[in-house]
Order: sequence, then structure tokens, then C-alpha cells
Amino acid sequence: MAKFDIEISEVGPRDGLQSISTIMPTADKLAWIDALAAAGVPEIEVGSFVPASVLPQLADTAEVARYAREIAGLSVAVLVPNFRGAQNAILVRPTKMSIPLSVSETHSLRNVKRNHQQVLEEVKRIAQLVKSLPVDQRPKFEGGLSTAFGCTIEGAVSEDKVVELAVALMEAGCDEVGLSDTTGYANPAQVQRLVKKVWAAVGKEHLTGIHLHNTRGQGLANALAAVEVGITTVDSSMGGIGGCPAAPGASGNIVTEDLVFMLEAMGLKTGIDFDALFAARNILANALPNEPLYGFTPDAGLPKGFQRAL
Amino acid sequence: MAKFDIEISEVGPRDGLQSISTIMPTADKLAWIDALAAAGVPEIEVGSFVPASVLPQLADTAEVARYAREIAGLSVAVLVPNFRGAQNAILVRPTKMSIPLSVSETHSLRNVKRNHQQVLEEVKRIAQLVKSLPVDQRPKFEGGLSTAFGCTIEGAVSEDKVVELAVALMEAGCDEVGLSDTTGYANPAQVQRLVKKVWAAVGKEHLTGIHLHNTRGQGLANALAAVEVGITTVDSSMGGIGGCPAAPGASGNIVTEDLVFMLEAMGLKTGIDFDALFAARNILANALPNEPLYGFTPDAGLPKGFQRAL
Repeated sequence: MAKFDIEISEVGPRDGLQSISTIMPTADKLAWIDALAAAGVPEIEVGSFVPASVLPQLADTAEVARYAREIAGLSVAVLVPNFRGAQNAILVRPTKMSIPLSVSETHSLRNVKRNHQQVLEEVKRIAQLVKSLPVDQRPKFEGGLSTAFGCTIEGAVSEDKVVELAVALMEAGCDEVGLSDTTGYANPAQVQRLVKKVWAAVGKEHLTGIHLHNTRGQGLANALAAVEVGITTVDSSMGGIGGCPAAPGASGNIVTEDLVFMLEAMGLKTGIDFDALFAARNILANALPNEPLYGFTPDAGLPKGFQRAL
Repeated sequence: MAKFDIEISEVGPRDGLQSISTIMPTADKLAWIDALAAAGVPEIEVGSFVPASVLPQLADTAEVARYAREIAGLSVAVLVPNFRGAQNAILVRPTKMSIPLSVSETHSLRNVKRNHQQVLEEVKRIAQLVKSLPVDQRPKFEGGLSTAFGCTIEGAVSEDKVVELAVALMEAGCDEVGLSDTTGYANPAQVQRLVKKVWAAVGKEHLTGIHLHNTRGQGLANALAAVEVGITTVDSSMGGIGGCPAAPGASGNIVTEDLVFMLEAMGLKTGIDFDALFAARNILANALPNEPLYGFTPDAGLPKGFQRAL
């Protein structure tokens, strides 16, 4: 029996911060992560093991991850773009390590300069690296299918291709796969259809999480669709940080605060305390005074007499 | 067979405009309504028959409604707070006429200075007035259950009370009832539960529509829940106008543009053309230069290769 009905994976420190130009000082990141964990957020993606020249915002990922690993009970996730990143990542002993594989090969070539086969070769090498570790030091290794719901370059992607690549990731040695709506193209019907198709191919236990963006305002509706069909881990970002400056109100990832409100209001336990979550938001707001924070529930407050899921 | 899978009822000219202090000139309203109708919006709530002293923003409702009634194929909805309002309303021969009944009696007393029984007496008088009209001139008469998902004064409302008042509205002579989340308290599970309970009491054909607010960012998720369970008419407001100025990003009603995108992306036909809808938004933006317009899809644009529902 899971501790929670739905597990929130807070990706703000990675996906949020990598998408804004401001570089958050390490001390602020640690304070923010402390506050998120204190609110009961069960998993935090703390950074990405990419060269500092590519993403200076995440140059302190190793330090941040080491700190986060000392927080009791917290699952610490990191992203790695390739084998070199994984070599660096395992030194901090993350709980979870993800590598993205873009379903759009055009996007893959532009993003990581590798085609599908080349990324899958990296995945195999990383899987072997993970298996070379003592059992109690192995991170859960996830292959994240990015642009799974459509690509800004290719347009629609083939659902058969998503399924095929999910199988290939599992065969290459991943513990599980994830679905990412990198482009904010997903709709609720598509979410449910694609989750079911991937489940049919790799088994329900090997796809538990989804990563959604709010580019077209569909984030919570897509999260609802995913949860309805049986997804149990949902990525989200505090304040929806990471949005495109060209699209006012277009937050990046779905907003943690509103997602937690939806789930708890529906009677789905997340383990997260609202007052402490809003306190963490204040820490974020103070650390990023020039970045807009999205989300409605913090401003509106909880409904009168509101009770969390029991 | 319905012409569309889901019927959008655009409430911006009524609920949106009544909630902002700017008074939109009548000519701008007419141009906006023309553009909405040209985009294929099947129903528009054009105003409310309340005294101009109470809502000067809607003082031109009769003129606007008369104009809208000349647009071929458009369903023209109006709101009436009482019998006097209904007397004025029927002169413009609206397609639909709604009266709100607040499930929270405290809210009812503050809002219209009448308790439940007194509102129901008004409903009976209005129903008789409607029945006194020639059949081809009778508007569809709807009783809208406001604060149906919770009240900012009373907090949670009893679902049994919602059902009881739905039955009372039908017995008082309404053609149908509607559910309104006036306070933005609703969650998807509650939406589905309450719709089913009311259906069990009054019959599925007598509750077809829902009115949602986006106060806590739950609007589209709640709309999805409603549509999944079988609701076929969804109120929404272009640009989500009418939001609370104290809550940045907290739009009023759910945003028409994002709702239409969600539905069409899911393969649910709304009959609405996006280019024409975005053109109507530009008219609104020009008419209300100092009001923020919400919604993500207009800024983000449609996904590459996107196709509407067939």
C-alpha cells in the first residue's frame, strides 16, 4: 500500500530553474528544497548533470543533490543527458535518475545531437553502470519519453513510435519509462489513450509517472485524465516557473500548488501540507523577485472549511 | 443528434463584464458579439435584466439582446434576478432566460435579499409568465443553482440541499436546472458526484449545463470532469474576463479559448473556428485595453499540424 494516493514530484529546481535566465544562488536552492520537503513533498528533481557551460543555472547540481540526500525520507531525482552525466550523477547517490529520449528524432538531434539509436546506446551503458553499483546504491533509472504528445518541429508524433521507444527503453535496461508533454500539446483523451497503449506494451508497473506542461492551459485537465486512468506520480513545478516570457500567463510545468489542491479536494492524499507549501512558495518568491509565479490557489486561499484528504 | 458534441455558452458579455468596473460601450459589445457568433459560438449570454443602478455595465442589455436576436442561428441567453427582470426580459424574446437560486441561503439573502422560498415564489411567477406567451416566443427557462459547490460565507454546502433545490426549481416550473460553481470551490470528483445526484432526482435531460469559475485554477479540469460524465453545455468567458483584481492570474469564468482547444483536441466538436475566435479576442482586447485577458492557447498558438474535431 502506497503511503500516498498520488506522489508529487517537484521539478521546479530542475525544469523550472533551467528555463529562466536568473541563476538562483545555491543557498536559496537549499532553503527552498528544505521548505518543500518540510511541506511533505515526497520527491524533488534537484538538478541536471549537464555541463555548466550549457546550463549555468544548474552548475551546482552535485552540491544541491548531496544536500537533498541528507533530508530524511526525501526521494532525490536528477536528470542526466548522457553517460558522462550519469557517471557524475551516481557520485551523489540519487534516488532516481532519468534520461530523456525524444520521440521526435528531429528534436532529439537538435536537443542532444543524437538519434534514437545513439540515445538508446547511452541508455544501455548507463543501465550497465547502474547495475555495477551495490544494490542499495542503485538509483531507480527512468527513461523519459519527451515530445511524447507532439513536437514543435515535427508536429504530431506517432503513438506507435512512442510505444516502440518505451519498449526499447525497457529493453535497454531502464527500470521504468515516463511520458513527457514537453511541448504542451497533450489533451486529456490523448493522455489516457497513450498511457494505456504504453501499459499494454511494457506493463503497468513500468509506467507510473507523467510530466506535463501548461503551455495551452491544459495542465490540470491532463493531470486529472492521467490520475483517472491510474497514473500515480505527477511532475509539477512550484509557481509553474519556467514559462515562456513571450506568452503571458503561460507557465512552464503544471503548478504544484493548484495540482495539490485538486488532488486533495478530490480526496486523493498527497501527504502535502498547504500552509507549509505556501511558505515554500514565499521562499521561492523571495529568491526570484523578478520572476512571475503562477498558480491560483495561493492567491485565492483554500475554500472556507476545506479539509485535506484523510 | 446534436449539431455539436459540446455547446459552448459564452458568458463574457454578462458575467465577465458585470465583474469589471469598465463599462464597455454598446457598439463594442455588438461588434464583439458579432465576432463571437461569426466564430461559431452557438450561445451567448448577452446581459442581465437588473437595474442600471446596480450594474451600470449591463444597462444596455435590452438593446444588446435585441441586436443579438437578429443574428441567425444564435441562441441568446439573458439572466434575470426576479419577476420584474423577467417581465423586461421577455420583451426582447431571448432564446434562454436564467434565474439564479443560491444554494447557500445566507448568500441568497445577501445577494438578492430573498430566502429560498421567496426566490422559488418568483420562479413560479416567472414560469407562469413564460407559459402565458405563445409557444414560439417562450424562452427556455433555467434555474441556475449558484454556490452549488460551496459558499464563501457558509463554506461547504449540503449536496442533499442542492438536489432538493433542483427538484424545487423543476416543480416551480423551470424547463431545466444548471449547476454553478460561483465561488471556484469545485473539484472534479465533486462535479461528477453532484451532477449524477441531480440527474437521479430531476432526470438527465433537465440538467445539461454547468457554469465554472477558475478561482483556484481548477476550471478546465472541472469542465473535463463534467464533459466526461455527460454534461453537454459548458459556460465560459472569452479571455476569462471578470477575475478578481486581488488575485493575479485568477480569471473569472473558465477561459473560452482554452476550453475550446481542449474539447476540439479531444475530438469533441464545438463548431467553433479558432482563427475567428482569436479575432473576436482581439476585438475584446481593443475594447478593454486596461483589462487583463487570460488564456494560454491564444498566446501559444495551436500545435503544429493541429486539426479540429471532425
